[in-house]
Amino acid sequence: MFGNFLKNLTDRKPLIHSITNYVTANDCANILLACGASPIMADDVNEAAEITSICDGLNLSLGTLSSRVIPSMLAAGARANSLGHPIVLDAVGIGASHFRLDTASQLISKIKFSIIKGNISEIKSLAIVLGLSAEIDNNINNSTQSDRHKEIPLPSSGVDADAGDTVTREQLDGTVRFIKHCAQKAQTIVAATGAIDIISDGHTAFCIYNGNPMMSRVTGTGCQLSAMTAAYAAANPDDILTAATAAAAAMGACGEIAFERLNTQDGSATYRNYIIDAVYRLTPDELERRAKYEIR
Amino acid sequence: MFGNFLKNLTDRKPLIHSITNYVTANDCANILLACGASPIMADDVNEAAEITSICDGLNLSLGTLSSRVIPSMLAAGARANSLGHPIVLDAVGIGASHFRLDTASQLISKIKFSIIKGNISEIKSLAIVLGLSAEIDNNINNSTQSDRHKEIPLPSSGVDADAGDTVTREQLDGTVRFIKHCAQKAQTIVAATGAIDIISDGHTAFCIYNGNPMMSRVTGTGCQLSAMTAAYAAANPDDILTAATAAAAAMGACGEIAFERLNTQDGSATYRNYIIDAVYRLTPDELERRAKYEIR
Amino acid sequence: MFGNFLKNLTDRKPLIHSITNYVTANDCANILLACGASPIMADDVNEAAEITSICDGLNLSLGTLSSRVIPSMLAAGARANSLGHPIVLDAVGIGASHFRLDTASQLISKIKFSIIKGNISEIKSLAIVLGLSAEIDNNINNSTQSDRHKEIPLPSSGVDADAGDTVTREQLDGTVRFIKHCAQKAQTIVAATGAIDIISDGHTAFCIYNGNPMMSRVTGTGCQLSAMTAAYAAANPDDILTAATAAAAAMGACGEIAFERLNTQDGSATYRNYIIDAVYRLTPDELERRAKYEIR
Repeated sequence: MFGNFLKNLTDRKPLIHSITNYVTANDCANILLACGASPIMADDVNEAAEITSICDGLNLSLGTLSSRVIPSMLAAGARANSLGHPIVLDAVGIGASHFRLDTASQLISKIKFSIIKGNISEIKSLAIVLGLSAEIDNNINNSTQSDRHKEIPLPSSGVDADAGDTVTREQLDGTVRFIKHCAQKAQTIVAATGAIDIISDGHTAFCIYNGNPMMSRVTGTGCQLSAMTAAYAAANPDDILTAATAAAAAMGACGEIAFERLNTQDGSATYRNYIIDAVYRLTPDELERRAKYEIR
Repeated sequence: MFGNFLKNLTDRKPLIHSITNYVTANDCANILLACGASPIMADDVNEAAEITSICDGLNLSLGTLSSRVIPSMLAAGARANSLGHPIVLDAVGIGASHFRLDTASQLISKIKFSIIKGNISEIKSLAIVLGLSAEIDNNINNSTQSDRHKEIPLPSSGVDADAGDTVTREQLDGTVRFIKHCAQKAQTIVAATGAIDIISDGHTAFCIYNGNPMMSRVTGTGCQLSAMTAAYAAANPDDILTAATAAAAAMGACGEIAFERLNTQDGSATYRNYIIDAVYRLTPDELERRAKYEIR
Repeated sequence: MFGNFLKNLTDRKPLIHSITNYVTANDCANILLACGASPIMADDVNEAAEITSICDGLNLSLGTLSSRVIPSMLAAGARANSLGHPIVLDAVGIGASHFRLDTASQLISKIKFSIIKGNISEIKSLAIVLGLSAEIDNNINNSTQSDRHKEIPLPSSGVDADAGDTVTREQLDGTVRFIKHCAQKAQTIVAATGAIDIISDGHTAFCIYNGNPMMSRVTGTGCQLSAMTAAYAAANPDDILTAATAAAAAMGACGEIAFERLNTQDGSATYRNYIIDAVYRLTPDELERRAKYEIR
């Protein structure tokens, strides 16, 4: 099923506008080129909307957020909405500061996102923005002591998922329910990444079992997935839920392929390169064969 | 011929000041170190001119342009001009927004550049800045319908050359003529990069046939070439036209060497690394042997 | 001795807040993940202190310094001081502009740093900030003509150490004395990196003989060491002097391990990757076995 989505991507070569962080911008540009899309990065308010106009999709990231680029994000988002381009919000570290949380809240209130992506800790912070704190307790928290009466429970553990937030197969039912509620409330697709990725439009949820734990030892694999998700969505505008799922399956599959290439001296830098190499080499057939998922 | 230019570079180890984009700044710094130069990046107006003073050459890029750094570029450019340092303008995405086009226009009016570099689509946008729209039609456009009466024909396809702008051997005569006119009008060296690189001071034009199409699947190879061009020029101030040509031949040759090393699992990330590796290993003799060019 | 410091690091997985430059931010994040820590980059004044609060250590770099982030550095530094977190200042290019020198002076006057790091040229500029110009002449300069009556002797040769500033075994005594004086005056640990790293709290000095000259051909190995130093210090708060030394020995050892892997086609990009790979693979035992140092 996902193979066609990759084929459309390499056929259509969408141009993706990213307003992203300076830590992983190079990786995001390279993964876009590797998967068959083209990147352009532009974050000055004097050109953000105009650049969006010549693109096919928009990717906004909260990483290394600067107040300087918030107006640029709003301008680019408004333009992308008016043109019907898919827009991805990567909620990097949304729970790490009130600045990021408030900015996410502002962006979500003014821009119609196609996909909001984060690790499970970030999606829990997103739930707070959406007024869904109670859902966290009811579905995925194991603690007997409710924190629903607390202030916004910042800070989290930064930009990585909290250890206690790892989604296991045992917790999967509750987490799927939670992600669906978030998607319904946000009226968008929510992509929660982790050992098991869960992507839902509020009705259907895809659970993706691809990937390798070593991906968490490379900075920016999440950012790269956001960029690639925007590319898959831009090339497959008629089914953005499946497009986002195909992107996550592709990234996870490439994490597996790259891991299989490592020798005993290779570490996280070589792994980073091999992931991008695998994205470059991935064919529709291999994506079909590698994808491990179920629909819930 | 080019070997001596590389030898001068490794002997003189010029220090290059780059005000460049955050997507490829790391690659630019690494390619400068690889080729034998030293990098320093500084873009705050409080130090831009002072940093330029201790350097041997200046490299300005329009990539991820921010209004914050325009005064820094102007200050660094004025200082470099007063010191007689070579200055490269990398016109990244000049045709992608009016902000970039207007900034390029402002920079060109106030700074005497040694070299203005871009892919052929970017040089066409540059021609508009220079008041040479008609030249585009007369020399390199195949369309029967003239667009000389149009508004500035933005937007282009972003930071990559438009597919229709690939320079083939059939179109070479017209394109060389066009690049020469641009160089004459701008009173500088114009370096148009692509499958065939064309570099001219308005009188002589070098056509360079080195390179590999896979270079376009790695972000920042153009930015790296700009940085390396500044290094070659700073180390060879008496013949900047040949220095810029040597830099382009070196980059293209390294793209070939890197491609020959790839195995069936390697992709664009390994290729990126191998290009820098090749720049690091390139000797004057190998550059002589590999360079494929003609003078027109 | 150093093995335990690495073990504590991988056990405690400290979260390190870096306000660093956009040239090497990706490398800094990746080296932190490779060594067992976690990175977060945040430089907006609206979140800098809050982000610091959730972290275990702070890393500030003067590379690509922007006036925008100085208030962020001051806010993060004040918060880290109040929480007792170790703070590293990486004095990148401190001697290259008055802006960097003045900013360093301001930061040092307002923040209590745990470690100030730089190459030997940078530490000489630091000595000027500390009012120790005479110490430079008395201990480490060979010139017969004193420059102690000069204005602040900017500019230096950029972000790399001046060739004349290489520390040789012959000059070691004087240089160790100089670094000790700097540390005493600054009431902090001073880490001077180079062919021989010298790290002192003003009383004890460690001289580290690990490393490989090729590390200077890769951008950001110094920045990576700063980030890793913050991680080692955060995981070993009771002995920051030895923690900083362990970090420098680890980085140097990984530079050696990476160099041993290179084949005849590999250059600086592959070397960069192999260094990070080696950091990822480094065990406490190997660090013990590889570390070459003496105490003075």
